[in-house]
Amino acid sequence: MAEHAAARLHLSGLCFFLQLLTIVLFATFVRYSPESSNLCSTEPSCSQRDPSPTLGYPRFRDAHLRALLGFGFLLAFLSRYGVGSVAGSLLIVAFTIQWAILAQGLFYFSQNSKIYVSTQSMVSADFCTAAILISTGAVLGRVNPIQMLLMALLEVPLFACNEYILRSHLGVSDSGGSLTIHTFGAYFGLTVSRVLHQPHKDKRKEQQDVGHQHDVFAVVGTICLWIFWPSFASATTTHDSAEPWAVLNLYFSLSASTLATFVLSPILYEEGTLQVAQLQDATLASAAVMGMAGEMLSTPFGALTAGFLASQLSLLGSRFLSPILRSRLKTEDTCGVHNVHGLPGILGTFLGILLAALALSLLGSRLQLVFPLVADSSRTTTEQAQWQLCGLLITLLLAASGGVITGVLLRMKVLRSPPEGNEVESKVLREVDEDGCDRGASSEERGTVA
Amino acid sequence: MAEHAAARLHLSGLCFFLQLLTIVLFATFVRYSPESSNLCSTEPSCSQRDPSPTLGYPRFRDAHLRALLGFGFLLAFLSRYGVGSVAGSLLIVAFTIQWAILAQGLFYFSQNSKIYVSTQSMVSADFCTAAILISTGAVLGRVNPIQMLLMALLEVPLFACNEYILRSHLGVSDSGGSLTIHTFGAYFGLTVSRVLHQPHKDKRKEQQDVGHQHDVFAVVGTICLWIFWPSFASATTTHDSAEPWAVLNLYFSLSASTLATFVLSPILYEEGTLQVAQLQDATLASAAVMGMAGEMLSTPFGALTAGFLASQLSLLGSRFLSPILRSRLKTEDTCGVHNVHGLPGILGTFLGILLAALALSLLGSRLQLVFPLVADSSRTTTEQAQWQLCGLLITLLLAASGGVITGVLLRMKVLRSPPEGNEVESKVLREVDEDGCDRGASSEERGTVA
Amino acid sequence: MAEHAAARLHLSGLCFFLQLLTIVLFATFVRYSPESSNLCSTEPSCSQRDPSPTLGYPRFRDAHLRALLGFGFLLAFLSRYGVGSVAGSLLIVAFTIQWAILAQGLFYFSQNSKIYVSTQSMVSADFCTAAILISTGAVLGRVNPIQMLLMALLEVPLFACNEYILRSHLGVSDSGGSLTIHTFGAYFGLTVSRVLHQPHKDKRKEQQDVGHQHDVFAVVGTICLWIFWPSFASATTTHDSAEPWAVLNLYFSLSASTLATFVLSPILYEEGTLQVAQLQDATLASAAVMGMAGEMLSTPFGALTAGFLASQLSLLGSRFLSPILRSRLKTEDTCGVHNVHGLPGILGTFLGILLAALALSLLGSRLQLVFPLVADSSRTTTEQAQWQLCGLLITLLLAASGGVITGVLLRMKVLRSPPEGNEVESKVLREVDEDGCDRGASSEERGTVA
Repeated sequence: MAEHAAARLHLSGLCFFLQLLTIVLFATFVRYSPESSNLCSTEPSCSQRDPSPTLGYPRFRDAHLRALLGFGFLLAFLSRYGVGSVAGSLLIVAFTIQWAILAQGLFYFSQNSKIYVSTQSMVSADFCTAAILISTGAVLGRVNPIQMLLMALLEVPLFACNEYILRSHLGVSDSGGSLTIHTFGAYFGLTVSRVLHQPHKDKRKEQQDVGHQHDVFAVVGTICLWIFWPSFASATTTHDSAEPWAVLNLYFSLSASTLATFVLSPILYEEGTLQVAQLQDATLASAAVMGMAGEMLSTPFGALTAGFLASQLSLLGSRFLSPILRSRLKTEDTCGVHNVHGLPGILGTFLGILLAALALSLLGSRLQLVFPLVADSSRTTTEQAQWQLCGLLITLLLAASGGVITGVLLRMKVLRSPPEGNEVESKVLREVDEDGCDRGASSEERGTVA
Repeated sequence: MAEHAAARLHLSGLCFFLQLLTIVLFATFVRYSPESSNLCSTEPSCSQRDPSPTLGYPRFRDAHLRALLGFGFLLAFLSRYGVGSVAGSLLIVAFTIQWAILAQGLFYFSQNSKIYVSTQSMVSADFCTAAILISTGAVLGRVNPIQMLLMALLEVPLFACNEYILRSHLGVSDSGGSLTIHTFGAYFGLTVSRVLHQPHKDKRKEQQDVGHQHDVFAVVGTICLWIFWPSFASATTTHDSAEPWAVLNLYFSLSASTLATFVLSPILYEEGTLQVAQLQDATLASAAVMGMAGEMLSTPFGALTAGFLASQLSLLGSRFLSPILRSRLKTEDTCGVHNVHGLPGILGTFLGILLAALALSLLGSRLQLVFPLVADSSRTTTEQAQWQLCGLLITLLLAASGGVITGVLLRMKVLRSPPEGNEVESKVLREVDEDGCDRGASSEERGTVA
Repeated sequence: MAEHAAARLHLSGLCFFLQLLTIVLFATFVRYSPESSNLCSTEPSCSQRDPSPTLGYPRFRDAHLRALLGFGFLLAFLSRYGVGSVAGSLLIVAFTIQWAILAQGLFYFSQNSKIYVSTQSMVSADFCTAAILISTGAVLGRVNPIQMLLMALLEVPLFACNEYILRSHLGVSDSGGSLTIHTFGAYFGLTVSRVLHQPHKDKRKEQQDVGHQHDVFAVVGTICLWIFWPSFASATTTHDSAEPWAVLNLYFSLSASTLATFVLSPILYEEGTLQVAQLQDATLASAAVMGMAGEMLSTPFGALTAGFLASQLSLLGSRFLSPILRSRLKTEDTCGVHNVHGLPGILGTFLGILLAALALSLLGSRLQLVFPLVADSSRTTTEQAQWQLCGLLITLLLAASGGVITGVLLRMKVLRSPPEGNEVESKVLREVDEDGCDRGASSEERGTVA
């Protein structure tokens, strides 16, 4: 009982400390961007001259959707973990947004030792939140909220660092985050999951029936992703006029990927009933594959093909690769993050590399927007393709090494859940553990090859 | 067992074939519209001169909501069919979007034997998806996924054809689709349902209790429709400045229709408890009635009255007309499509005809936007009203004849579900059948006249 | 049985009468605003000269979200009252929107004895709906639909009157409605609840288990509020370029408030499991506190601090104040309206007063937008702060006196539910009563101090 009360107070104290810390750091360093206050009203005639306030509005609109992706992911997990996990995920979202503003501000927004935030920084912070939630999906069910908070605390700066290297130093074009979000988030989480592997403890409980409620979440989550992801994916392309391609490509990819699920799923799984969760995975995979290539693809059929392949890859991965990962590599992937974000993210990156190499012949007048360095003749298309590949390697390296360090830190005795013998574990800590019946893994076990 | 496995592989094979077909057709014919790539960045000063990128943005935004209507409908069905039907509906949505781009492209977007797609074509494709989902609602529970796919395959070109005749040849003004979406979709589906009628097989199972889960969907679906329909309805009006009227009229119509449900429902149904599904029906009916008249109505009280009448019509129809349809006309209307889309759609068309005849005195300076042909003096208002009426007749004719042909094709032996005696039917095919406990019909049976 | 049928017909008749009344009043007084029809098409070159159609579009977009806040609240209640209450709430929403257009039109939009409506009036009507729903939350479970309709009938004009005095006469800046919506709605409802108190009747039934379904609504409601509130809150700021601050402040406030819930909740409640409903309360509280101060705060850390405090205040209030309210003041607060809207609304107002006093040094060039009277030098910042305080007192006075009058009227014999002895009560009237298991109150009772 004492341990149980202590664990609850530890979480409470940690949250208090972190919130205090961010408030102090915000008070010291963070200011609103002065650009958002050069207002028309002071110079009454400027609305004719300066179209930027109007142009800025839709971008702010996209920022207002920033929470959506996070919640889309959240709902994706909900379908596997139930209402019990929502509190933990909300905790991560609320903390990560504040922390990402600070971490990314250090790289991007600092002037005169101040971080100037605008709607654009909120969008960046949300991208970061998405990556952290992907990583959380790989370890959900085996870490307690304190460990989740610490993982976010460590992953956020690394994410910002990786993003900064790729975007600003290597000139990698990755507007939708195939590399920076999906690949980084998935492999960081998987490495942490591998390091946290404990032979004796990981004998998972029997699957309890998760019931219909989870299907409700899967349906709502799938719909949410279908509807809002396209506009989210286009929120960081810096040029308004290029957005339609990224969005249209994503739509085409989504529809092909959904249809493709109906092709392979009845072949792979005896049971035959297509689960809504598989459609959700297809939706996520098609978004991951379009992250980098979305604004490079100049024909709709390319998007259809990519979506089709991503969905097949994700289904095949969850059928054949996940059991190998679990038994041989001792990496428990609770929410199927590897099949849904990792593999499609890498597929998307290779597609992006291919398209970068062909950019001159395909993109035409859009070249300036997608690959400014190529358009400026400071790079050839081959060099751009090499840098894109280089970005993949750096991302994998940083994700893996960061994951190892984080995993080792999280294994520290003091952070672990109260010992197993203790029946009256803290409910705050326990709920994530107990609700943890990974449907993703179970659906593979139930279905035998047709 | 062999049949069961075969049925599953048939669906898988059909999906594969259709996806391959659309990829090949897209590769051959579909390109992104060149207009979306004449970018400002190549001429740095054009943002001052050319306001179109900014103006185009909100339209793209509306396109991003394209999936919503489809899912609104989907949720409407969910409340009657449960999670089991969502996979089938998603399959239809994913296929229809791709197919509609091709079919509508043949009529609208073809230049140099290429189809140029833009966000506008996505919006059109989504309108088509809405009509297909309405038709699906009339036969849901008695067709298998293969039949649903084939119905979509046949209905999409017919929808595109009808829309093309009405808009481009007859000059009918129908921005929200009272005729092209609601009336066409409802009567096409009802005709198919009539042709599919099989005297011996249609002894429906007893109503199983659908439980609370369906209410959850009805609530979420109603909310979704309330929130997003107005902006969807205005997505195809070609003039930005006229949109507010269509949207405001729809809002007024929604609120009057919701209030009106509380007037008639307690009188018609003994039970007294107003079901959320009835409110959902009222929401859909008020949208159907505003489809054509939304941008023509120049006073809010007209919208209030129309919403009030649409809700009453829908309730009276489901109370008195549906039983007659079922017993006398042998037309099973599983989701109440006739009361919610058919009747209000026709009511909306008559309202549109009336308003067209009065256009000169009511619309004033908006005439140019709503009836360009009348404003150009190439038509009188009476002629415009006659053409609107003519549009109704053509729509009904095309819907009915297309429905008969489709129904006859779907009755072919090879397409039907495995024989009834077979216990171990394929779950893929079965789920839609078994979940099919039509609450719409049942609510009428349970309630006796007060 | 006779009474039961009569009660149902009373509701039906009242709805019919009210709908007829609004239709007649709309036909007589309400017209669309002529501004929304001065279209570009009549003068083909005006799009270059007049940027207003473009600027107007996003505002219309916000209007399209008007229903959202209402439904956010609705979902908030759903998590406590279940599907049964949704019909009643929709009835209130549908009626209030129409009635508020009329009531607010009398104060704001009347010219030549006509009320001109535009998207802006829809936004105002929606703000009013929000306040009515807050009040409803305080009495939900103890009034029947007829009483709820009459309460809305009386509260709407009073809300419009209070808003008019504060905005137009006192020059109070309250764009997000800390005062006009949250404080007014909460204290009006609480006063009605106090007057309706009946010693013998209020012995509430035992708590029935509300089950998991309500958690689903709490999750969806919380997500809905997280995502859409910011843009709603900024819908009535009259200047486009100032919106980002209000929105960004709200986001920061939301995230701090969510994190803060994890600090205090484990300390206050033994049980330890953080309920999603508490996170929802924190979300609502952080929005209430930012209502007035949102566009005045010039630094993000202020928003973080305010959100942190609002969440703590709401939690402490529900732990320690609600029992006192119930036992000593005999005021049943069914949905915890006092802690979620009342207290944070007052906290937000005091924050607004403080910021108004410091406006000169903090706001700089934005002063013109937030406090036009101060910028025009017709007021000092101290005077502005005094007027803001004065607005608080007037709001409390009007809410309390209006609540007393409404409560006394609602206690009239003829309006009460059929007598308790009658078993076969009308289901329309009963459902709200019986479903009424207030989780808000119960969660306090279950949890004992740690």
